[in-house]
This record gives sequence, C-alpha cells and structure tokens, in this order.
Amino acid sequence: MSQEDVRVLGIDPGTLVTGWGVVTRTGASFRRIASGVLELASAKPLGARLGEIRSAVVELCRLHAPSALALEKAFVAHNVQSAFRLGEARGAVLIAAADAGVAVFEYAPAQVKSTVVGYGRADKRQIIRGVSLRLGIPHAERTDEADALALALCHLIGWRLQSLGVVGRRRGAAL
Amino acid sequence: MSQEDVRVLGIDPGTLVTGWGVVTRTGASFRRIASGVLELASAKPLGARLGEIRSAVVELCRLHAPSALALEKAFVAHNVQSAFRLGEARGAVLIAAADAGVAVFEYAPAQVKSTVVGYGRADKRQIIRGVSLRLGIPHAERTDEADALALALCHLIGWRLQSLGVVGRRRGAAL
Repeated sequence: MSQEDVRVLGIDPGTLVTGWGVVTRTGASFRRIASGVLELASAKPLGARLGEIRSAVVELCRLHAPSALALEKAFVAHNVQSAFRLGEARGAVLIAAADAGVAVFEYAPAQVKSTVVGYGRADKRQIIRGVSLRLGIPHAERTDEADALALALCHLIGWRLQSLGVVGRRRGAAL
Repeated sequence: MSQEDVRVLGIDPGTLVTGWGVVTRTGASFRRIASGVLELASAKPLGARLGEIRSAVVELCRLHAPSALALEKAFVAHNVQSAFRLGEARGAVLIAAADAGVAVFEYAPAQVKSTVVGYGRADKRQIIRGVSLRLGIPHAERTDEADALALALCHLIGWRLQSLGVVGRRRGAAL
C-alpha cells in the first residue's frame, strides 16, 4: 500500500452514541474525509441498537474502504456495568470489521491523548482542540466524534513515525 | 402460542466457549431438544470469534425456532476485563437474536440457581445435577452447556408458574 493510501476509520463505540471518523494521510498532512455520530434510541431493544452499530460500521467500511479500524483498548471502565455495555458495543464493531475484512488496532486512552495532544492526561476539551488543530477543521462539537477522529489520527501518526524510522515498531495492538 | 409450543434457547456466551441448549415444555415436563458448546480457537482474531458466535446463534434459531432466548443478566464479573470480554460475546448473541427476531430475556444467576436447583447459591456441580434431573438426561459434562440449559429451564419454569397462577408476573427482564 502506498503511503498516500492509508485511510483509517476510528470508532468510539457506545450503546447510545457511537462516534466515528475517517482520516487519511497524504504525505505529512492528515485530512478528515468524514465524521459523525450515530445516535441510538434508548427506547429500542439493546439487540436492535447493536445491530444498527454493526450495519453502520459495515456501511462506513464499504463507503470509505479504510485500511484499518482504530478502537480504544478496553481496559478502563467506571464500573462492571459500563464495561458490559461498552463490551456489547465493541462486539458489534468487531463483528462488522471482521465481516468487512478490515484489520482492527487498539490504542490505550493515554496513548491516543499523548499522540494527538502531546499530553497523556488531556481532558475532553483538549482532545477536541488537538483533533481540530491536527485536521485543520472547526472544533468538533461532539466528544464522541472527536474521540473517534483522535483514534484514527493516533493510528496514522504511529504509521508515519514508523515509516520515518522514528519509532521502531508499530504502535497499538492488533486485535 | 399454545403452552406446548414454548421452546427456549439458553445461551451462556463466552469468547472462548459458548454453551447453548434448547429446551421445550410439554404439559408439566421439560425436554432437552439439543445442546452443546461452541469452542472458539483462541488463536483467531476476536472479531472472527464473535462472528462465529453470531452465526451459530442465528443458525440455532433457524433450526430450532425458539420463541425466546434466555441469557444471564450481566451484572457480575470477576473484573472489568472479563466484563469487557463477556460483553463482546453478549453483543454477538444479542445481534443474532435481533436478526432472527427472537425476544431475549435475562435472568440473574441467583434466580436461575434458585429456580432450577432450589438454592440460589448452588455451585456448578449442583447446577449440572439439577439440570440433569429436571431434563432426565445423563449429567452434562460441560459447565457451559449445563448453564445454558439451566437458563432455558429457568425461563420455561417461570412461564409455567405464571400460567398456573403461582407467580403474578413474568420472571426475568425482557431486553
């Protein structure tokens, strides 16, 4: 794959709001292709919402043909309950990626923040600003959308540093 | 639906082993139609394993046409990590049930044990024995298979008690 070809779909999954963003790299610059949030009606059964997440991710893969999908590494949650809900949403994304044949890479939250903002403990506002600066776009309004774009950027910056020989190994864990 | 028609698919999801069991009620007796475990190769990517769980559940719904799918209520896990993994497997099952148009009902572990064994803190061995006695089958060898059968039984016993007027409301929470 040529260096201009790298296009990444970042996903910030949730059973009520799922953020997504497609970012590409041309030379040294990054560009947002598209991004948004998928809002899921809480009145709908959980299974139907998970089905919607899967369908949306499959459709995004079809539309944008990403070479990778970037997800947050699942090891932090407020509690076991939120880990269950997040796990269910992750399951929908992972099934979609497998169906679409797109490789999944995971990044720890601190790794995303440190790569995109330069500070591993950045807050939500700083992530939104960092993403906007990196992509030359107005501030994203939604945290979930900014988080998804940050994940895609994190993957692309890792690739770029690697291709420049700055880092010796691929960042992120393949799933 | 006639009372003889009630057929339930119990699922005990996991990203390495997923137990399943189909149980039906005829009058006052319960009968196992089929049961087993789906073993997933740990070397395979997580997304592929989740896809296998979904496909298997869709296929079980097609083969056995259950009127309900019974799952364990997701609120206990050893830790956040296992909640994430279990959530992912649950997501695959919930998507499959939604695809197949089968309603999902959840039961707390203590509710399953108390309904099937008569003791809310029954251990794994007691669950295997309780399931075998209820269904008139040799002891199930696999815990995951017995747990899935116990979930299906729990749903059916709840239905039966309700139809007899013993309990005022449907047990378990529709998802």
